[in-house]
Amino acid sequence: MASYSIADIASWERFYRANFINSLTGFKSVNLIGTVNEQGQTNLGIFSSIVHIGSNPPLIGYINRPVKAAPHTLANIEATKLYTINHIHPSFVQQAHQTSAKYEAAISEFEEVGLTPEFKENIAAPFVKESRIKYALSLQEIIPIRLNDTFLVIGKVISIHIEEDIVSEDGFLHLDKANSICSNGIDGYYTTELLQRYQYAKPGNQPQKIN
Amino acid sequence: MASYSIADIASWERFYRANFINSLTGFKSVNLIGTVNEQGQTNLGIFSSIVHIGSNPPLIGYINRPVKAAPHTLANIEATKLYTINHIHPSFVQQAHQTSAKYEAAISEFEEVGLTPEFKENIAAPFVKESRIKYALSLQEIIPIRLNDTFLVIGKVISIHIEEDIVSEDGFLHLDKANSICSNGIDGYYTTELLQRYQYAKPGNQPQKIN
Repeated sequence: MASYSIADIASWERFYRANFINSLTGFKSVNLIGTVNEQGQTNLGIFSSIVHIGSNPPLIGYINRPVKAAPHTLANIEATKLYTINHIHPSFVQQAHQTSAKYEAAISEFEEVGLTPEFKENIAAPFVKESRIKYALSLQEIIPIRLNDTFLVIGKVISIHIEEDIVSEDGFLHLDKANSICSNGIDGYYTTELLQRYQYAKPGNQPQKIN
Repeated sequence: MASYSIADIASWERFYRANFINSLTGFKSVNLIGTVNEQGQTNLGIFSSIVHIGSNPPLIGYINRPVKAAPHTLANIEATKLYTINHIHPSFVQQAHQTSAKYEAAISEFEEVGLTPEFKENIAAPFVKESRIKYALSLQEIIPIRLNDTFLVIGKVISIHIEEDIVSEDGFLHLDKANSICSNGIDGYYTTELLQRYQYAKPGNQPQKIN
């Protein structure tokens, strides 16, 4: 087993370190965030830092990089207080990755990469039509992380659109049946296979499998 | 496609909603966090809310639930400023899940579930010997999320221990070769398969595959 110290990590070439540290955190949820500015210009960006904050109320966060590096999504969310999160499937992973290119603010990534904006009632922000699991959020709070000038952006889920056969009786979503992908590092995309579900764990018992 | 409104979500039975909302965010990194209190009592807990904050400096966050629901890991981190994060593999997923049972503070989950604490130089917090990818963090900041009384706990990576054949030339880690698993919802565990890596995206180009 190889060991690396804090001095080793600091000495690494920039892209090597970015690849390594981004992989170290493990597999990630990777999604497209859809927004619109006050003039109606749509924007679509890929984000792999979605994090569950709570279920009741349903709060979901993501980390936005420093404003200079990733300005458009955050500015649109601040202006309109609304955004959508859309799962990615293998059929459009290449287009999803391409949204990470630094397009000008006046350009819509939807048109550039070939994905379809879809508008649903009362939600100004665009969904991705090709996505099988998508939801809209209402901005609740933007928490600055002063350590490195990033932001934790927290939204409340206000509507969910999902293919019905993915939802199981107890509310669990079969993301593998939906073919939602996950990511690793900056640029690796993965499919998944269910290993096992386990029942709620209690001291003294072996965890029971859910079939 | 089924649609659910904010009123639908609020009307759901508590466990149904928890399953649904926890799945909605997509596949998650699932890890064991190892800590120790000031008396040397070890603690091990499973967390699926790890999030990448930045690579330089290497900052990694996780969401800690309200103190009443999940007190021990957070208290130990506050007391000692140190913790470890350890990837989970299929060979010990059942033991990892069992650490989510509500054990008393005086009980070590290592002993209860049958995993091996491993101590490395200068790090008081225990690693998980069985894990092929693990790292230690020094606490940087605990940011309260007042919306639901949770916390964003941010640490700086101070040492990494990893099987060498997982590290590729450009720093990318082959987490699938390491057999690191990911999770979905509260209780689903998954293996993964690499779909594709893509090069850094630029406007106007098709994304190029990395072989």
